[in-house]
Amino acid sequence: MAKKTEQDWLLDPRGCPGFERHEVVAHREVGPHVHHTEHYHVRLPRRWALVNITDRVEETLGRSGVDDGLCFVSAMHITAGVYVNDAEGGLLRDIAAWLEGLAPFGPDYRHHGTGEDNGDAHLKSFLTNHSLTAPVTKGKLDLGPWQQIFYAEYDGQRTKRLVVKVLGLV
Amino acid sequence: MAKKTEQDWLLDPRGCPGFERHEVVAHREVGPHVHHTEHYHVRLPRRWALVNITDRVEETLGRSGVDDGLCFVSAMHITAGVYVNDAEGGLLRDIAAWLEGLAPFGPDYRHHGTGEDNGDAHLKSFLTNHSLTAPVTKGKLDLGPWQQIFYAEYDGQRTKRLVVKVLGLV
Amino acid sequence: MAKKTEQDWLLDPRGCPGFERHEVVAHREVGPHVHHTEHYHVRLPRRWALVNITDRVEETLGRSGVDDGLCFVSAMHITAGVYVNDAEGGLLRDIAAWLEGLAPFGPDYRHHGTGEDNGDAHLKSFLTNHSLTAPVTKGKLDLGPWQQIFYAEYDGQRTKRLVVKVLGLV
Repeated sequence: MAKKTEQDWLLDPRGCPGFERHEVVAHREVGPHVHHTEHYHVRLPRRWALVNITDRVEETLGRSGVDDGLCFVSAMHITAGVYVNDAEGGLLRDIAAWLEGLAPFGPDYRHHGTGEDNGDAHLKSFLTNHSLTAPVTKGKLDLGPWQQIFYAEYDGQRTKRLVVKVLGLV
Repeated sequence: MAKKTEQDWLLDPRGCPGFERHEVVAHREVGPHVHHTEHYHVRLPRRWALVNITDRVEETLGRSGVDDGLCFVSAMHITAGVYVNDAEGGLLRDIAAWLEGLAPFGPDYRHHGTGEDNGDAHLKSFLTNHSLTAPVTKGKLDLGPWQQIFYAEYDGQRTKRLVVKVLGLV
Repeated sequence: MAKKTEQDWLLDPRGCPGFERHEVVAHREVGPHVHHTEHYHVRLPRRWALVNITDRVEETLGRSGVDDGLCFVSAMHITAGVYVNDAEGGLLRDIAAWLEGLAPFGPDYRHHGTGEDNGDAHLKSFLTNHSLTAPVTKGKLDLGPWQQIFYAEYDGQRTKRLVVKVLGLV
């Protein structure tokens, strides 16, 4: 098994190259109350990746019509995660190296007794967390100026899903 | 102080052996809007444990009657956590070993000046997080096929509580 | 660059010395439903800090008038975090030392190519998480007896913001 290197990671501070489509799976309105749920389908071209999905989430927020509420975003797999951090290329390399240092890819996980080789991915998902909540105020994600939403893929090159649920008042 | 070993952990990929009961602490309905809150009482038979509470949370969701919304789950102690990951026995052993490696049990925490010996537990709770939010869509937890909800106990053998709050539309 | 020591941290188990003011940025009421949003302005007197903001969040909850719902708290910067843990001074020292061990301050981050020197802060924010959700039941934060809400500053000595959003029924 070859040693993992920085080149194994797809790092994109601005966009999400493997984004395939969004799917509206539920939309309910009761007076001014809206619950809007989408699944994203993504297929990252490399096994490990950190990619920016802020614009996608903003688009979902726009489709929901919500003005004030909460936006929940989660990977639907346990070998991936989502997190909020800075969209700076050097930092993405720092994060990738740090994740690899604390939860290294390798052959020695007991989970591999099942035939899998992604034990590292399950542990990395603890470090980034697998889901997040973002506040929505005045029709926008109420994030600080440097806060961006990232999808973290730890076992890619196949189609995976995220769920985004926006709850709030129009 | 004996060195901690893998045998110190209770690892159950399917159920929660120490679950005692649920307690409905609040239930409010305003038209189609429901807020339903339960506390779980658990007493894990070992000091450290990773146990599956997905079925319990699904039961709470059923009692709430919510069709679409959010389900918040949290340990009510700072020496425990909840997380989403895979229900695979080998992986539970990997997670336990990883937690122990990054936040080891031992005598050298300053917190032990209070007479406690659970400094490791407070740090482990950062790694798994102490709470989570799960989306509810079409009457079910909107989780991926391999995502299960686990309770992580880091200072057990006494009764502890979790809080589960379901908010949404019937 | 001097080596970081424990003395670099401001650790306050009871209060938040650098709290400047809260700002109500949005308040909506629709029948018994309330969405109340505040930004906190804080300026920690040291670069690294762990300070207790539970009382501040309880005050925001009081201003919202919410009886049952969720309270979302987040740093609006990626060099800070919020977390729930115990208000014990020795433990704060353990947490600071642990964060420093797993995500050390130092010159060798690629992020520093931008002129910044806070690469450690971005990584520490993964360990504590940058946001949290707390349940609100019967007009109070539904926390366990030892659970307190902390703000973690990793690049202070300048004004920063947090966002607190309370959603629920009066």
